[in-house]
Amino acid sequence: MSDPKQAPVKVLITSGPTRQYLDPVRYLTNASSGRMGAALAEAVLGLGHEVVIVSGPVSVDYPKAAEVIEVITTDDMLRVAREVFPNCDGAIGAAAPCDYKPLHVSDQKLSKTGRPLQLDLVETPDVIAVLGESKRADQWVVGFALETDDRRFRATVKLQKKHCDLMVSNGPEAIDASDNHVELLDPVGTVLETISGNKKHVADRLIHQIHNRLILR
Amino acid sequence: MSDPKQAPVKVLITSGPTRQYLDPVRYLTNASSGRMGAALAEAVLGLGHEVVIVSGPVSVDYPKAAEVIEVITTDDMLRVAREVFPNCDGAIGAAAPCDYKPLHVSDQKLSKTGRPLQLDLVETPDVIAVLGESKRADQWVVGFALETDDRRFRATVKLQKKHCDLMVSNGPEAIDASDNHVELLDPVGTVLETISGNKKHVADRLIHQIHNRLILR
Repeated sequence: MSDPKQAPVKVLITSGPTRQYLDPVRYLTNASSGRMGAALAEAVLGLGHEVVIVSGPVSVDYPKAAEVIEVITTDDMLRVAREVFPNCDGAIGAAAPCDYKPLHVSDQKLSKTGRPLQLDLVETPDVIAVLGESKRADQWVVGFALETDDRRFRATVKLQKKHCDLMVSNGPEAIDASDNHVELLDPVGTVLETISGNKKHVADRLIHQIHNRLILR
Repeated sequence: MSDPKQAPVKVLITSGPTRQYLDPVRYLTNASSGRMGAALAEAVLGLGHEVVIVSGPVSVDYPKAAEVIEVITTDDMLRVAREVFPNCDGAIGAAAPCDYKPLHVSDQKLSKTGRPLQLDLVETPDVIAVLGESKRADQWVVGFALETDDRRFRATVKLQKKHCDLMVSNGPEAIDASDNHVELLDPVGTVLETISGNKKHVADRLIHQIHNRLILR
């Protein structure tokens, strides 16, 4: 454990996917593994800080020193993150919350009829945008943007819309992979660092940047 | 390894969930863990038989002695199962294939618009029904029926519709759990055995029944 240049801070990390059920069996989700969240937690702990992880269902092992709160849906993740955030110095949104949910949820398993099924989906709340809007002047928020096209532009738009202090831009090849390739963007869209490699390396570099730019500011 | 009462046979086991993607990130699925499939494979191998597992994405470890073929979608699972089945003596459908898929799949991540999203779903093919229809007189097929209501009745209807020789009826509490509670039904809906306990125990009893009633027949 290295010696932090200031008193330990507490960092909220959202991690993993969330699930939005249609009925007791079927749900909408994505393949987020929680590995990026676990690597970020390890790096934050390594600097002597505290970590609270709010995580959807994953099979990854989080560091033992981190407090982990498990959730299923995006609404759950938001509710817990809002409860935890006031006691934290900053938040990193490494989760990939499911951003649509069925308008109606059946309490019985939907039976197949042989006919098409029309599913009405509505957007779930944006966890990091809510934290970004509600943050105090002494708090910071770092988001992740996963885009398949116009990545840097869309990531910068998201950063501003969600009131983030920094934004990590990556692509779908990051999901459930051991490696990642990211760009770290500041609020005016400047690329502060391009990082490639395994998720431990990417997490170490990101936390180094967050430490210098946001924790020590 | 016990001494089988006849020459070793080869058993196809489908296992785990499948995924049906809406776009490069989001998909429809269920929480099937592959643990029932793994326990069944272990029990079949324990009787000295061979096993081929066709599995969707899972984090469970299958027995090293089993041949494992990984698939993502229900169409993939059907394609591989149809290729493998002619060389097998029987099939056990322990998978929970996703039974609906989006009519249109976007090759770019769908951007949020703030408005509801209407998703048109169509049914995927029924893997075990196709195997049941195509089986030779010397082959057998055992299905699993997961229902929340009218379990025994619906399981018997499914058995007949899918041309199964036996049907295992269970509930949604089986999904991603260490224990299971099942009824084994014959083609006229008779309950041959009710089995409760951890998945190893349930698998051992089911394979004992399958061995006596189908493999040794």
